[in-house]
Amino acid sequence: MRIRCSKSELVKGVNIVMKAIPSKTTMTILECILIIAYNGTITLTANDMELGIDTIITGDIEENGAVALNAKLISDIVRKLPDNTVLIETDENFMTKISCEKSKFNLVGRSGEEFPYPEEVKKDDFITISQFTLREVIKQTIFSIADNDNNKIMTGELFEIKGNTMKVISLDGHRISIRNIELRQEYPDKKVIVPGKTLSEIEKILSGEIEKTVNIYFTQSNAVFEFDNTVVTTRLIEGEYFNIDQMMSDDYETKVVINKKEFIDSIERAILLVKDNDKKPVILSIENDVMEIKINSTIGSMNEDINIDKEGFDLMIGFNPKFILDALRVIDDESISLYFMNSKAPCFIKEENDKYTYLILPVNFNNVG
Amino acid sequence: MRIRCSKSELVKGVNIVMKAIPSKTTMTILECILIIAYNGTITLTANDMELGIDTIITGDIEENGAVALNAKLISDIVRKLPDNTVLIETDENFMTKISCEKSKFNLVGRSGEEFPYPEEVKKDDFITISQFTLREVIKQTIFSIADNDNNKIMTGELFEIKGNTMKVISLDGHRISIRNIELRQEYPDKKVIVPGKTLSEIEKILSGEIEKTVNIYFTQSNAVFEFDNTVVTTRLIEGEYFNIDQMMSDDYETKVVINKKEFIDSIERAILLVKDNDKKPVILSIENDVMEIKINSTIGSMNEDINIDKEGFDLMIGFNPKFILDALRVIDDESISLYFMNSKAPCFIKEENDKYTYLILPVNFNNVG
Repeated sequence: MRIRCSKSELVKGVNIVMKAIPSKTTMTILECILIIAYNGTITLTANDMELGIDTIITGDIEENGAVALNAKLISDIVRKLPDNTVLIETDENFMTKISCEKSKFNLVGRSGEEFPYPEEVKKDDFITISQFTLREVIKQTIFSIADNDNNKIMTGELFEIKGNTMKVISLDGHRISIRNIELRQEYPDKKVIVPGKTLSEIEKILSGEIEKTVNIYFTQSNAVFEFDNTVVTTRLIEGEYFNIDQMMSDDYETKVVINKKEFIDSIERAILLVKDNDKKPVILSIENDVMEIKINSTIGSMNEDINIDKEGFDLMIGFNPKFILDALRVIDDESISLYFMNSKAPCFIKEENDKYTYLILPVNFNNVG
Repeated sequence: MRIRCSKSELVKGVNIVMKAIPSKTTMTILECILIIAYNGTITLTANDMELGIDTIITGDIEENGAVALNAKLISDIVRKLPDNTVLIETDENFMTKISCEKSKFNLVGRSGEEFPYPEEVKKDDFITISQFTLREVIKQTIFSIADNDNNKIMTGELFEIKGNTMKVISLDGHRISIRNIELRQEYPDKKVIVPGKTLSEIEKILSGEIEKTVNIYFTQSNAVFEFDNTVVTTRLIEGEYFNIDQMMSDDYETKVVINKKEFIDSIERAILLVKDNDKKPVILSIENDVMEIKINSTIGSMNEDINIDKEGFDLMIGFNPKFILDALRVIDDESISLYFMNSKAPCFIKEENDKYTYLILPVNFNNVG
């Protein structure tokens, strides 16, 4: 193989496929980026066996071929090269020479044959959405997947397509995040669970421009995200997703409209008094046009008032402050609406048109002052 | 105690004294910042028993008093407060209330009486230098103190005052860094060893403006650095510093003038092939007007040429690349001069007027290709 491309193209491509390099693996070939130069196209590939990424970079092929190079090393090297054309050439033993200006590296490469190439997926049905939307949707739901593997299904997000809407759901047993998106056209119904790890890596790669689109193909066991020059292939999580309809409700006894920034600032201060393993709730005490935010921990106590618009009854209710913060931080709106039934029932942070819904379970605060 | 001051003053003061909060200690009082409001002055103090820092902040005292508050907690809290006036009040049991706008914290404080106040130092002799100079001098020498306590003296830096010059030296057994500064006047001779930890904290606190000055007082066992509203008191390291004169030499067989940035870039690339415990040297091969930088490790090899101006003989010599990088990174000059005797003798990176001298011992590279 013998290819020439600009340092910047190489850095861009390597950064994209690096997202599919496993942090720990016993298969050293998975720690490599596969470079294939063939048929006029230079493709970089990485694959952690659940998530595979291919990306095409611009460059000149002087000799077809393939080589697998240690991802961490190649990433470090290309970033430090001068901003100029990089020549990569391999011999029959996959010894690889990388040259740029007067700098020359010799590295031991490996045959591409050992590399587990991402599964080819039959590309029939697909939906198209903007990169911007997909990135927003992931960012606004990914925080409430489960952080451990005890329940595999909770580590993924449900993507449910029905007519011209797509609903994305994540939940971890304490809270549920829901985003509804209107699609540009009608699609056949579809319901799949995409691994959270895949989604968070995709979120990092997406350029996020509104005019640019992503095609998403779903099959029985895989999903493929195609955008720009990149193809992300992921296994789906098998199983039936939770039925959350019984948790949902439009009834409420108390509705609070509050300035999001003031609410965030206040909870960020409250959380300073919570040490790692000391699960003290933040208590919201809603009375007339004021919500008092208070916390009482082993370190000390904090309280502060925020002016609100209230409908319905006064209420006192406790929450894990982190769960409220996680939701507030991804909402774009300046002012948000909270809906409560009573101090034992979940709180809903909801947008009028159901663009987003965050359900958070309350915690008991009987023992707290 | 009852004081009012702006959030920004409080944040500034806390950030300064935080530098003297020990990361690990069995004495919990040392994890506190002592606030004293007395005689019209609000002083914050921290002390890790080797290094003590006092700083005065602007504010109004409504009631004299003192309280010791957990440094980490108070630092987190003040940073998160709204940008407004902060009221701090304590009761007779040192329960402390911090209020700012509608936000109110209650914390358990401790009596200031337990707090080990930094030793008072007799302030007779002192030297004055600009903050800018002191910061530069520390930055340009601190990297070559020893990183472990095996030899206590190597963990400090020698400050040697003779007439109107100050010489600052650090060494770790593999290299020596020397900075010479001209003082604005003559001072009595003095030779003290200042702990490296103290110097690196001072470097972070100094505003570094050229017009602002630092007064440095030296006594038998302490040094005091006074600047802005801050006083840093430190114990000195006892003992006789190394006599480095026998290592110094103005003779050379080869002199190389090289562009600093090209040299740094090249060694930064070479170092990518060195894994943590694999002490492969970088080899400088000087031939006519070119210096070839090369390295050969278990991962691969790299080589590149840099154009140089050379006087004297050709030479091949090996170094720990990190030692060269450390020195190059703190030198301001665009082009630097390297002086060599032979491949077994130290290399000197020197400025013509002896402003700085970096001595680096070479390493053997017989087994390297």
